[in-house]
Amino acid sequence: MDTDARRPIVDLTEEQARRALPLKWGVPEGVLPAWVAEMDYAVDPVVMDAVQGALAEGITGYPLERDPRLGEAYAGWAARHFGWAPDPEAVREVVDVTAGVRVAIDVLSGPGGVVFPTPGYNAQHGLAQVTGRAEHLLEVPTSAERCEIDLDALERLFAEGAQTLLLTQPHNPWGRVFTRAELEGIRDVVVRHGARVVSDEIHAPLVLPGAEHVSYLSIEGTHDHAVAVVAASKAFNTAGLRCAQLVVPSAADRARLDAQPMSRNDSWSPLGVVAARSAYDLGDPWLASLVERLDEQRTLLASLLAEHLPEVRMRPLEATYLAWLDASAYGHDDAAAVALERGRVQVSPGDSYAPGTTGHVRLNIATSPARLTEIVERLAKAWR
Amino acid sequence: MDTDARRPIVDLTEEQARRALPLKWGVPEGVLPAWVAEMDYAVDPVVMDAVQGALAEGITGYPLERDPRLGEAYAGWAARHFGWAPDPEAVREVVDVTAGVRVAIDVLSGPGGVVFPTPGYNAQHGLAQVTGRAEHLLEVPTSAERCEIDLDALERLFAEGAQTLLLTQPHNPWGRVFTRAELEGIRDVVVRHGARVVSDEIHAPLVLPGAEHVSYLSIEGTHDHAVAVVAASKAFNTAGLRCAQLVVPSAADRARLDAQPMSRNDSWSPLGVVAARSAYDLGDPWLASLVERLDEQRTLLASLLAEHLPEVRMRPLEATYLAWLDASAYGHDDAAAVALERGRVQVSPGDSYAPGTTGHVRLNIATSPARLTEIVERLAKAWR
Ligand SMILES: Cc1ncc(COP(=O)(O)O)c(C=O)c1O
Ligand SMILES: Cc1ncc(COP(=O)(O)O)c(C=O)c1O
Repeated sequence: MDTDARRPIVDLTEEQARRALPLKWGVPEGVLPAWVAEMDYAVDPVVMDAVQGALAEGITGYPLERDPRLGEAYAGWAARHFGWAPDPEAVREVVDVTAGVRVAIDVLSGPGGVVFPTPGYNAQHGLAQVTGRAEHLLEVPTSAERCEIDLDALERLFAEGAQTLLLTQPHNPWGRVFTRAELEGIRDVVVRHGARVVSDEIHAPLVLPGAEHVSYLSIEGTHDHAVAVVAASKAFNTAGLRCAQLVVPSAADRARLDAQPMSRNDSWSPLGVVAARSAYDLGDPWLASLVERLDEQRTLLASLLAEHLPEVRMRPLEATYLAWLDASAYGHDDAAAVALERGRVQVSPGDSYAPGTTGHVRLNIATSPARLTEIVERLAKAWR
Repeated sequence: MDTDARRPIVDLTEEQARRALPLKWGVPEGVLPAWVAEMDYAVDPVVMDAVQGALAEGITGYPLERDPRLGEAYAGWAARHFGWAPDPEAVREVVDVTAGVRVAIDVLSGPGGVVFPTPGYNAQHGLAQVTGRAEHLLEVPTSAERCEIDLDALERLFAEGAQTLLLTQPHNPWGRVFTRAELEGIRDVVVRHGARVVSDEIHAPLVLPGAEHVSYLSIEGTHDHAVAVVAASKAFNTAGLRCAQLVVPSAADRARLDAQPMSRNDSWSPLGVVAARSAYDLGDPWLASLVERLDEQRTLLASLLAEHLPEVRMRPLEATYLAWLDASAYGHDDAAAVALERGRVQVSPGDSYAPGTTGHVRLNIATSPARLTEIVERLAKAWR
């Protein structure tokens, strides 16, 4: 295969999707799934080839404790895409992004609480408690024109005893990409309080035209208090292969992590390493097609909403394929439940991201144009 | 493929092994690896077919939150092999065995310490501390004729405040299979102190002729205080595919586990689930060949030691392919280092299993007869 030639996005048929994506498509017959953050697209054939090749060689056992080629692959990729790259030496394997966030907090953060901006990624609600720390919600009001981290609120939470900010950059479900200026503002507050940042950057490859990813680690004065958690898995639909990466710019932090007992962090799969390396090294021609497609899907969503659901409020989608829809104008107590019952569409309920936002839903647009059209038409039938 | 026909063990060539087992075989050219617990055998072709088939269908994303077919597969397998099986409903996915041990302690155990019999599996040293608990070593003296859990010592440690016993059954590196009577004795002490047991039974499929696996959960009066952590991954050489199972007989314990935030336990791979299901459902004809081979290897080891290293002490190997060798009669301060330097054999150093036992090593015999012969001859050259 010519790995430099642009590779198209291949839509999965419903039958293929049901086999390939058992969680997302594990919905009852007749229901369209727009919930779990997976895409109804075939995996990049170059990445798939690499994983199949590894399996054909019998690689089903323990991975290396550290594969230096992974750090190099990530650094090369980040340099090409973001104009900033960590030292390859700063990269550490973890089984997945959420586990990486947890390890970073467990090992590097003080015992104070974790600031979790809401709405926030549902599977990371409660993670602070799992590390034995309090969870401090930093709420973005549903009425806000633009989702931002309120620096005064952040100050207050640190003053109350929080010691870590769990940043999601780009943000799910806000769909936002923080600007350099915003990140600098956050850094200033963090530094003033001697706090730490864990920056979950899993969606960085999915920044859409018009925005630009700035890693929190590329901001001056962050290396002594921050790590980033990155992965190719969200952009390349390979979350089940299990390998994400911690980027740990401080040598002292790396020493603390490396000194942990194996049982703290040793569960990534060698197939996940292979997938990540090939995605970073060879995935650009596929990723370019993906971003193009997601850009088209976001345009399509806007026109579908304008036509069928004009009362739905939605902020601009700068990154990710996950749209945060405020359907409360249609007056349903539980918009997601109504979508499922009356529209036969499974969306993610708002209140799994922010307590009380049952009029909101998160909608996954990473599917075919036809399926997205059908989904929005069904939502309109359900909600209007 | 006729999945019922007996399938032979296929030895990997050195070149194949270097590709398939990058950790174990990541040793310098000319060194023979006998350390990491992986086998120099090709994966059962039926299991490999199943995993390759899943990958060909594009299964690289999130697994089901629970796959009932996995619990059924395990229960069926346990019934056939041990004459005792849990309710399939009692089975929960975890990413690997050590993570399962950790989750069980984190969620189900009291805050008191964890009793860890030594010598004990190196990667689980320090696990108690990772859960925020103290580690209480229960030492088996190197002079003991037979490795046993000293019930008086166990009593004392519980009286001192320990609240959990981490049992390894069959035991690595003791090579022992506890008898029903021994397990009942342990249970009595545990019950008297209101303590809990986490029983790591990863080596249960590798019980060799002459012994019989008894799950701790098959002992009466254990279901309210114990879980087992099981896996097909050690016997089928698929640890990197990442799925083990917690067997949780108590409905109350299951409710506590099921109520945890996702970030406590959600990292297993769908390919690991496929591997485990096919191993349990279809792996018997291969496993029978494996046990036969390991039985032959243990006989070969005994005769090689008698011939070349008559001063090495070794207790009978009842299970696993890991032999615990006492080489201290040869008078080396660090038997593993001497094995590597003078013999070009990488074994696991004794003191990673029990502090101070630098005259011991753990030897992995799951290789070809020729390679095991070469390994023991080299050890003899190094140590004598
Ligand atoms: C912000 C964020 N972090 C992490 C994840 C999940 O990553 P992983 O499966 O590697 O834990 C997601 C999934 O959508 C996400 O949106
Ligand atoms: C007793 C014991 N438990 C667990 C493991 C490792 O299992 P996992 O890789 O699934 O954590 C081993 C590996 O040899 C072991 O001997």
